[in-house]
Amino acid sequence: MRKIDLNCDCGEGYGIYQFGQDEKIIKYVSSVNIACGLHAGDPFVIAKTVLLAREQNVAVGAHPGFSDLMGFGRREITLTYDEIYNLIIYQIGVMQAFCKSQNIQLHHVKPHGALYNMAARDMNIARAIVRAIKDLDTQLIVYGLANSKLIDAADEVNLPFASEVFADRVYLNDGILMSRNLKGSVHENVDTMIEQALTLITEGKVSCDNGEKISLDADTICIHGDNANAYQFVKTLRDRLQELSINVCPVGSK
Amino acid sequence: MRKIDLNCDCGEGYGIYQFGQDEKIIKYVSSVNIACGLHAGDPFVIAKTVLLAREQNVAVGAHPGFSDLMGFGRREITLTYDEIYNLIIYQIGVMQAFCKSQNIQLHHVKPHGALYNMAARDMNIARAIVRAIKDLDTQLIVYGLANSKLIDAADEVNLPFASEVFADRVYLNDGILMSRNLKGSVHENVDTMIEQALTLITEGKVSCDNGEKISLDADTICIHGDNANAYQFVKTLRDRLQELSINVCPVGSK
Amino acid sequence: MRKIDLNCDCGEGYGIYQFGQDEKIIKYVSSVNIACGLHAGDPFVIAKTVLLAREQNVAVGAHPGFSDLMGFGRREITLTYDEIYNLIIYQIGVMQAFCKSQNIQLHHVKPHGALYNMAARDMNIARAIVRAIKDLDTQLIVYGLANSKLIDAADEVNLPFASEVFADRVYLNDGILMSRNLKGSVHENVDTMIEQALTLITEGKVSCDNGEKISLDADTICIHGDNANAYQFVKTLRDRLQELSINVCPVGSK
Amino acid sequence: MRKIDLNCDCGEGYGIYQFGQDEKIIKYVSSVNIACGLHAGDPFVIAKTVLLAREQNVAVGAHPGFSDLMGFGRREITLTYDEIYNLIIYQIGVMQAFCKSQNIQLHHVKPHGALYNMAARDMNIARAIVRAIKDLDTQLIVYGLANSKLIDAADEVNLPFASEVFADRVYLNDGILMSRNLKGSVHENVDTMIEQALTLITEGKVSCDNGEKISLDADTICIHGDNANAYQFVKTLRDRLQELSINVCPVGSK
Repeated sequence: MRKIDLNCDCGEGYGIYQFGQDEKIIKYVSSVNIACGLHAGDPFVIAKTVLLAREQNVAVGAHPGFSDLMGFGRREITLTYDEIYNLIIYQIGVMQAFCKSQNIQLHHVKPHGALYNMAARDMNIARAIVRAIKDLDTQLIVYGLANSKLIDAADEVNLPFASEVFADRVYLNDGILMSRNLKGSVHENVDTMIEQALTLITEGKVSCDNGEKISLDADTICIHGDNANAYQFVKTLRDRLQELSINVCPVGSK
Repeated sequence: MRKIDLNCDCGEGYGIYQFGQDEKIIKYVSSVNIACGLHAGDPFVIAKTVLLAREQNVAVGAHPGFSDLMGFGRREITLTYDEIYNLIIYQIGVMQAFCKSQNIQLHHVKPHGALYNMAARDMNIARAIVRAIKDLDTQLIVYGLANSKLIDAADEVNLPFASEVFADRVYLNDGILMSRNLKGSVHENVDTMIEQALTLITEGKVSCDNGEKISLDADTICIHGDNANAYQFVKTLRDRLQELSINVCPVGSK
Repeated sequence: MRKIDLNCDCGEGYGIYQFGQDEKIIKYVSSVNIACGLHAGDPFVIAKTVLLAREQNVAVGAHPGFSDLMGFGRREITLTYDEIYNLIIYQIGVMQAFCKSQNIQLHHVKPHGALYNMAARDMNIARAIVRAIKDLDTQLIVYGLANSKLIDAADEVNLPFASEVFADRVYLNDGILMSRNLKGSVHENVDTMIEQALTLITEGKVSCDNGEKISLDADTICIHGDNANAYQFVKTLRDRLQELSINVCPVGSK
Repeated sequence: MRKIDLNCDCGEGYGIYQFGQDEKIIKYVSSVNIACGLHAGDPFVIAKTVLLAREQNVAVGAHPGFSDLMGFGRREITLTYDEIYNLIIYQIGVMQAFCKSQNIQLHHVKPHGALYNMAARDMNIARAIVRAIKDLDTQLIVYGLANSKLIDAADEVNLPFASEVFADRVYLNDGILMSRNLKGSVHENVDTMIEQALTLITEGKVSCDNGEKISLDADTICIHGDNANAYQFVKTLRDRLQELSINVCPVGSK
């Protein structure tokens, strides 16, 4: 039986600030990535979000990012590899503790924002992140952009990993994403998103901006909670996956 | 053979800022309390300090405080008990991760600054802190002010605890500390500090401001790294303890 | 002709986080209080909000609070009077600069959250705030809770001030507000709010929790943008004020 | 009579953290650049430093940087030009207010750290900074690296500017600084520093890494307070300048 993981960023509020639509989306995914307090999240928000995930029985991942609340971790910051290593240790530690306090197990780690993008293209940054994950728990699954350096780095040290793909982003024919800043780089039509998702899941392929169809590993699909159509998309996708007898479950589950 | 723990706050720098004299003092203590990144410390400072502690073979404790870098965790902030619980989970998680990444075990937890003082006098705050510690690791030793609510709260749930005393602070005859803001509340003379320390260690007693001598449990003595005479004091104290065949070792060691 | 000022807290977002409903509410008020970057607001949010205020032709005030983004300035923090003085200097300076860069004049200062409450009951805190305002611009109008120490402190040094009243809060018969934490302390019914507002504006009186009617100066009414009924309330209030030929304009305007 | 300005970064502490040696160095300079609270400095530190500057009768400048306390403003962060504009407005506003509260006039603006370097080489960033300065006060003098884009941008809109040179840094023969990260890029010998300073002041020339002597405008010399030899250097330099009858005074003074 075929299977796929659907993941969603969660717990991205801070103090009185709310962000995304955690309660609505979480019902339709199998794993969540929870902000760890440096680019978003605070101790109270994290606790609430881990509880929500436990109640909804989805796998919990740490979502570490740059220490930049004002920029929501989306601005590139120049750090040394050792600084990145320690940044990851810090944030995974936070999430492990909240999981432990609620008697669940941390399942995966997915870098956030600018750190995710930098880890996708820079092997040294990818290695610093992977080394931190491995030093804390060799069972943690590394979620990274399909075809990226982060996947290579995890593979290099035999850490379990999951190739992440996007249903709402346009791909170039070398397998990487068209920059979000370019016009037409984000699909807003739900049908297009559904089709791209299903082709990725069932064929392991995606149609690129030039019409070419390329291969892409797809272990997990990211649902962008801040996308206006996210709720409609994920609801529809679940129905279609059920029709196709494709199981939605966390990466690595049996 | 008699024994005592000497503890010191460490890792209280941030970014380029340095604070205290970790390298000098750590050679003379048996355990350290390391700031967790909210009132002081950052991922890099924490990593460096845990490494220093491991090299010096002293026990590592988490030193959680309020999220208030500007006030160094010394300003009282009104929080709910649940907020305090989560604040502690967050910070212990951080320190557990840095210990794990360097293959050592977290040994104890000692609240910092205003949180330490509030936990000393408010049983509900003390309970929130102790509950967080217990939920993460029932082996963690709670370091708290001798005679305080924090000690009571740890005892209540059968967590191991250590009564902390001060050699450089004046005690009132009900066993609590004279407020630091009052003139004459801090001993600056090294001989006086040595005498108070030795009387606490060997007799379990302290001479109060009114001349009365009261009993006080003394499992660990705090060395204030920012006290000008700290280095002279701790060096002399170690010599005196050796003469008296009193072993300096972490609380709970055999 | 009678007149009243309607004020609203604005610019309380931060980074990607949005808060309140500035664009909707601002059309119905005559002055706004803009967060200055320490408990909410960042340079970009402030610039955008000052621009919005200028476009809508409402008077701009600084809304300084504690340096506590996680607590949104609503948690009491123990500071010295000098620290409070400098906290206010800092934040008014910020708002004066954004006003200057957009060629408008800063009109008033209203402390935020916990600082507002502490300034209402503690004369020394009130004086520290008023001294900072006076040292920067003696034309700035101090917005403070009617009957509070902040009003007394402004009056004491001959600074212009405005007594602020609330349409959605229950008053005790000594003229102060019932604590927000108590059940029944906030009016949620729009008709009740309208009636309380009109009685305050036209009679300078309010019905207290025990039924007694007391006198209260009412120079400006605060519209809570985060109250679910705020929009309905302020829209209705404007209609009623127009029927009564009561002019809505900033405090001090001719 | 010839003259030169000596400037020094000041007020770079935060909370309990101290940095540099303000009290010692300030006696020998004619102007200071004070951190504005985002990469260093807090309201209390700023107030204290402005007071110190006023007492020592040196010109006060704002020293705005990135909002990155953990990185001390030394890490490059990718911002839009509008974000940079508002970042500068914010920080100049802060310093104007503290000057006003102590009855002195803000004299100049010098970007800090990574922002200084980015403004030196990127004309659009330089223009965003200069535009902010101009919108607040057209009398403010822009302090920028000699030969840099920041100087060009100030000149472009007729703002007064001052070319800053360094006595302790090695220059390349195109007039820019050898990267601090390269070995041998910083002079540590006081005699070498004195000679470089005097050649810059008296001849407007500097000997480059390849031995070539190039021309360089020198309106102000930066004294790095965190350089171990700063105190010895500035003391000696003042003596030499006196012998040469070269007046030490703020840029623009008569």
